[in-house]
Order: sequence, then C-alpha cells, then structure tokens
Amino acid sequence: MNAAPADVRSFEGDARVAALAPGNRGLAYGDGLFETMRAHDGALPWWDAHWARLALGAARLGIALPGEAFVQAQAGELLGGGDAVLKLLVVRGGTARGYAPAAGAPPGWQLSRHALPDAPPAGGLRLYWCATRLAVQPALAGLKHCNRLEQVLARAEADAAGCDEGLLRDRDGHVVSATSANLFVLRGSRWHTPPVDRCGVAGTCRAHLLEPLDATESRLSVAEVEAADAVFLCNAVRGILPVASLGSRRWPPGHAVVAEARRALAHSHPGFARDAGNA
Amino acid sequence: MNAAPADVRSFEGDARVAALAPGNRGLAYGDGLFETMRAHDGALPWWDAHWARLALGAARLGIALPGEAFVQAQAGELLGGGDAVLKLLVVRGGTARGYAPAAGAPPGWQLSRHALPDAPPAGGLRLYWCATRLAVQPALAGLKHCNRLEQVLARAEADAAGCDEGLLRDRDGHVVSATSANLFVLRGSRWHTPPVDRCGVAGTCRAHLLEPLDATESRLSVAEVEAADAVFLCNAVRGILPVASLGSRRWPPGHAVVAEARRALAHSHPGFARDAGNA
Repeated sequence: MNAAPADVRSFEGDARVAALAPGNRGLAYGDGLFETMRAHDGALPWWDAHWARLALGAARLGIALPGEAFVQAQAGELLGGGDAVLKLLVVRGGTARGYAPAAGAPPGWQLSRHALPDAPPAGGLRLYWCATRLAVQPALAGLKHCNRLEQVLARAEADAAGCDEGLLRDRDGHVVSATSANLFVLRGSRWHTPPVDRCGVAGTCRAHLLEPLDATESRLSVAEVEAADAVFLCNAVRGILPVASLGSRRWPPGHAVVAEARRALAHSHPGFARDAGNA
Repeated sequence: MNAAPADVRSFEGDARVAALAPGNRGLAYGDGLFETMRAHDGALPWWDAHWARLALGAARLGIALPGEAFVQAQAGELLGGGDAVLKLLVVRGGTARGYAPAAGAPPGWQLSRHALPDAPPAGGLRLYWCATRLAVQPALAGLKHCNRLEQVLARAEADAAGCDEGLLRDRDGHVVSATSANLFVLRGSRWHTPPVDRCGVAGTCRAHLLEPLDATESRLSVAEVEAADAVFLCNAVRGILPVASLGSRRWPPGHAVVAEARRALAHSHPGFARDAGNA
C-alpha cells in the first residue's frame, strides 16, 4: 500500500523526517496546499509558476512555507534527471487537536515522485456533466488546497458514467472546470475559460495559456459550452487534452486551433512537445 | 512534534501499521471522516451516535469502514479505563495520485487519545462573528468530514479577536454554528438550533439535546441570535458551554434554563455530570 520510500521524502521545516506526524493538520483537516508538476529531464520548467501559486495560497491561509531553494534542491535529487510527475504537499505546522492554527510550528511537507500518466485516449476525452456542484467559497477559490472532497465525489461520478473526466458547475449553474483540469472553450474565433474567483483552481497550465491564446475569462452556461466550436481541458501534468464528447455532444478530432494551442504550450514546457507533434 | 506512539494507533483495514501511508487520501485530499469522543472511565457513552454519524458519512462519500467491534476493542485498549478525548479518523483506502476513488482498497484509520480540555472560562464564552462564511454544499452538509479549512480560517479569526469561539454564517447570512460546536439559542421559552442541511456538522451533542430541550431547527439571523434570552454552544467533548458575550451583546451567567440543559445532558453522558453540578 505505502509508496516506496525512495519515491517520497518528508520534512518538518528543514528537517527530514521518516513521515509526517500522525496528528498533522493535512491529515486532520486538509489544512494544506499542493502542487503537481511535470518534470522533464529532471527539470521543472514551470517551477516559478507553481511556487508562486503555492506562496499565494500560503499567504491567504497563513501557512508557513519551507525555503524555496531547499525544496528545489530536494526535488532535483528526488527526480534524478528523469521525466516524472512531482507532487509537493505542504501542511500547516502543529499537531495539537483543534482547529486553532498553532503559531510558529514548522510546516510539514512532502515530495513524491510518480510515473507520467498514460497518454490520453486517441480522438479526445469523453466528458460528463457532474451532478456534484462546487460550493461558492471566495476565501479558498483559485487555491490548490487539500480540501478536495467535491472533486473526489465528482470524479467518482464521471468514472461511474464510464467517462474520462467530469465537468463541474457551481451552485448557480456556471460552468467552472473539470475535476482535475481547467476548461477552455472556443466560441467563433475566441477562446474562453471560466474565472476561478468563486471556486475552482487557478491552474498553472491555464495561466500559461491565457496570453498565447488571448483567452477571455467568461462565466459560461451549459448551453454555451455545448455550443462551442471546440473544447479542451488542461493541467500541468497532462498539458492540453482535446475533448471528443460531452454527453451527447460530439466534436471532431484534429481541430487546427487546438493543435495550435498545443504548439504554444510546448514552447513554454518541453514535456508537452510530443503532444504537440501528435495533435 | 509527533504524538507519542502510545497515544496513537494506525491501521489499514484490520492490519495495524506503523503509520498511514504518505500518499493516503486523508492527507492528499481530506478524503476522510472523523469523530471526537469523550471517554469516561474508559467507556464511550455516546459510541452508538458517533458510529452512526460516521457510517452515514461513509455511505454518502462511498468510504469503506473498518469493523465496528474491532475499532471498539482497539479504542478500549487505548483508553485503558481513563477519562480522555478519543479521536477516530477514517480515510478512504488507496494511495494512487488523482481524485478517482480506488475500489476495494482497505480504509486507513487512526485512533488517538488526548487529554481532556481545560474547563471553559468561568462566566461563559466570549464569541465573535467570523467574517469567514460557510459555503453551501448539501452533499457534505452534516458530515464530520476532513475538509475543514473554513473552520481553520474562522477559528484563526476568533483567536485574533481575543475571543473563545467564532460564530459562522453561511453565504446567505443564516447563522449556522461555531467553528467546533453547535449553537442553541433561547427565544422566549423555546430553544432553537440552526439546521445543518446546507452546511455545518450534525453534532452528536446537538443530537442528544434536541429531544430533552424540545428544540426547534430554525434558520436564524444575526439579529435573532443577538436578541436571544440565552445562548450556549455544545459539542461532544465539552458538553454545554454557556455564552457570556457575542460582540457587544452580554448575557448574565447562571441562566436557570441553561443549567437545566446541562443536567439533561449529564443524564446521557456521565462525563458531563461535573459541569452540570457547577452550572
């Protein structure tokens, strides 16, 4: 069951530990943040963006971070020059029972190395409209925090429906994202992606695409998404994932503008260059 | 930092383990449930109610539970006949990265023993209106799940304000609860407590009081709470906690109806008998 020790390193502040304490606040309350990064030849081309989002979340939640250079050095050692997924998890320090955050306790953190995911299904993803809605919570919106039960429930729905991913709406019916990816929607000649100011995650891949695609942040309805000329999902591990269907709506593969988006992404992260070649 | 090994027992299914796996889903996503129980002379008088809520949460989230009798036996050993707080944490099985729940993996779970909390401040609690709002999420409402960042943020606010606890409203302005306790409000001769169908936790102590107090579930506004004739908080560890103030509103100590509620509670849990004597 347990991840092989060679694939995980745990720390409290600057001290390497065998494991996070059993009373750590990540386990107790999901009181932490994480980043999931794609490493290419042992490097993390989007490190700065991941760390910036982590630092923003830490500031908003009042969680202390370990030193960036030390984390980077540990990540480099763990990666050992390979292609992999690297997950960094940081939890608020302290192990006392109760919600009150402890002052001054060093953060717990963990690096883990994982295999690259399988290639996405040829022809594109089959998507499902999840019944699970995202609650509106501006205090947590945009952050990649560890309170992810909504995503777990939604993903289970998509799996049960035999689909590759699920699309989530907020309680007011606005489309937000997939369970583990952001959403881009082509309407005419313009790319749109939902804002993430009330719920959802401000994805690192999404951020890397906003400018090259000249995309607009737009609240979108179910009808607007279904009427789109093309749709893709994206995240920092899998890059751009073309969408083949959403319920009964089908999109033909090989849309030239999606291929162009994949090439734009490959410019900023060489790990996605192969995808771009196949688009 | 780490809890003393003697105070914590960890398991995967029926197997005792040194610690939950570093990739466990509680740590990764808050994908779990917990119960915090007050033990009296090594017994857990409210065990049935705690287990029932845990089972309800597990059914709603699709999390497998360990066998009840085995958990109870382990809890009894850990308590060793004493008075203590016992925390039971159950996380969904599986350690693979990604939100998709793994089928068939045995749940991880952990029992930990903690000292009884200090006595509440004489004269009653000072409460604070938290700016943090609870998001409305009926899929998770009522459950004691491990996604508790809202409570952490709200509790930090109350601490910063120098108060003992914080009261939370939902996004529509309805009063819901304190960060770690339910709320009862006396209006005239009638006790009211907010419903927990949209957010909040269906507290075990709350459940034990509904009938003896003949309390009504009512959506309450800030003004209605502040106009109350008496207010108390309650949870399964601390029992009934009289409230002295809420912002500038003061309530005199020693309200006869609150003392009566404490006596009612002591009937169902001997751990609260001492409180009732002092009310």
